[in-house]
Amino acid sequence: MIGGADPEEVFLVKAYEVGRHIAKQGAVLVCGGLSGVMEAAARGAKKEGGLTIGILPGEVIKAANPFIDIPIATGLGFTRNALVVMNADVLIAIDGSYGTLSEIAYGRVHERPIFGLGTWDIPGVIQVETAEEAVRLAIKSLRKR
Amino acid sequence: MIGGADPEEVFLVKAYEVGRHIAKQGAVLVCGGLSGVMEAAARGAKKEGGLTIGILPGEVIKAANPFIDIPIATGLGFTRNALVVMNADVLIAIDGSYGTLSEIAYGRVHERPIFGLGTWDIPGVIQVETAEEAVRLAIKSLRKR
Amino acid sequence: MIGGADPEEVFLVKAYEVGRHIAKQGAVLVCGGLSGVMEAAARGAKKEGGLTIGILPGEVIKAANPFIDIPIATGLGFTRNALVVMNADVLIAIDGSYGTLSEIAYGRVHERPIFGLGTWDIPGVIQVETAEEAVRLAIKSLRKR
Amino acid sequence: MIGGADPEEVFLVKAYEVGRHIAKQGAVLVCGGLSGVMEAAARGAKKEGGLTIGILPGEVIKAANPFIDIPIATGLGFTRNALVVMNADVLIAIDGSYGTLSEIAYGRVHERPIFGLGTWDIPGVIQVETAEEAVRLAIKSLRKR
Repeated sequence: MIGGADPEEVFLVKAYEVGRHIAKQGAVLVCGGLSGVMEAAARGAKKEGGLTIGILPGEVIKAANPFIDIPIATGLGFTRNALVVMNADVLIAIDGSYGTLSEIAYGRVHERPIFGLGTWDIPGVIQVETAEEAVRLAIKSLRKR
Repeated sequence: MIGGADPEEVFLVKAYEVGRHIAKQGAVLVCGGLSGVMEAAARGAKKEGGLTIGILPGEVIKAANPFIDIPIATGLGFTRNALVVMNADVLIAIDGSYGTLSEIAYGRVHERPIFGLGTWDIPGVIQVETAEEAVRLAIKSLRKR
Repeated sequence: MIGGADPEEVFLVKAYEVGRHIAKQGAVLVCGGLSGVMEAAARGAKKEGGLTIGILPGEVIKAANPFIDIPIATGLGFTRNALVVMNADVLIAIDGSYGTLSEIAYGRVHERPIFGLGTWDIPGVIQVETAEEAVRLAIKSLRKR
Repeated sequence: MIGGADPEEVFLVKAYEVGRHIAKQGAVLVCGGLSGVMEAAARGAKKEGGLTIGILPGEVIKAANPFIDIPIATGLGFTRNALVVMNADVLIAIDGSYGTLSEIAYGRVHERPIFGLGTWDIPGVIQVETAEEAVRLAIKSLRKR
């Protein structure tokens, strides 16, 4: 799950729903571990008893939002975006600015399927309408591999 | 200078010209140090006696193309794209696929001006027509800072 | 837990015991995720139902040993040693060669307490005799902070 | 050239001399780019018209000391120590604390010859007496390869 730290309310709701559906499917949520879309998704996943991993930019794991079970410190700054992607099997992008764009780009470099909810319209990003659809298609894309 | 490792001939010519103009302006060429657009630009810069730096993905500096004066090994793989951007004051993007898109995205994250020649049409990338125009505007953008 | 990928049998036994004691104390095992001391410790931790995290050098999480619950890919090669340390609150070093020495050094750079079992005799490493003692003192050092 | 940011005066003199001898031999000085031993060595190298490269921990090249010709930003923090080593063919270590120890350790991981002046007494570090001797043996070790 990738997306911005400072989204509009509508995207926080979608991120929360994505997190819930990921957990319901028994999948693990991997994200950047900070606020905004990352926190909303982690909160949703924990609501359903899921497991959440946050790949953090800083050197200190305490910076993770309170819904992250496994915070991972990298000390890489924004360069850690590449590691968020590396640790996910499939990406769901919600909203987001240039940081999210870097993750979408790395998603294609590392050949991950990418599903988008109100995010960058880039070739290779499959745009979907709902959180449920994003998670359903994401899980399906993994089964095909 | 950012761009693809496997471009069409027309972009290699443009990259060579960009490299020449960078050197003529007394600027230093920073790139990814490998083949394609990176090598053509470095070749152009050396033709005019310029200085070239290549930020490499691997751990071994010998992987640099022969026109790189200062090869820097990182061992970061594609994650080194963020470091290419970090070490440039302004970006000129030519052609390119998702690796170049990650560099454009990091260019905006790190607030570098970006000039594009036949590359991704992303908000924040100023599209130009010629190598000469790209370098002239790039140098000008630095003077304003 | 840090230590070599190719230790003598006696150190594998100690690593296994360290892993067991870590899990018994309810602590999380963080290691490099590969073979040797890392695998023995993870196997010990899983024997007692503990949680294991492996910070891997490569880009692919499948490289983790089978006793790692949470494999984290970094693509940093040996440079990932710094991240293993960053994600641990306290270090227990067993045996090990220069890779382990780099982790001990980073342990002091990042001000982690370090307990050693048959490892490098470096100022700042508290040498202990048994796995049980290493884990007991490690847990105690955390409570003091 | 590796060594501490806050050494005693005697080590600054040695570092300056090492820098001078490196430049006299036509070799390139690679270091961490900051103060202390790094700055003294770079100042010595520039005194003799040498070329100096500084692999910096931060994201901003302006942090380099004024005797660095080619500053390289990494944004990796202390983790960049591994990259300093990767970009050197041979290491000369002067004084230094745990950061220098991490570089010595990575030097052996990456199989670089290491010559030491008042630094850590670790197997694999060849202890020498003078700056001239350190540089002479370092250059000789390269010719043998």
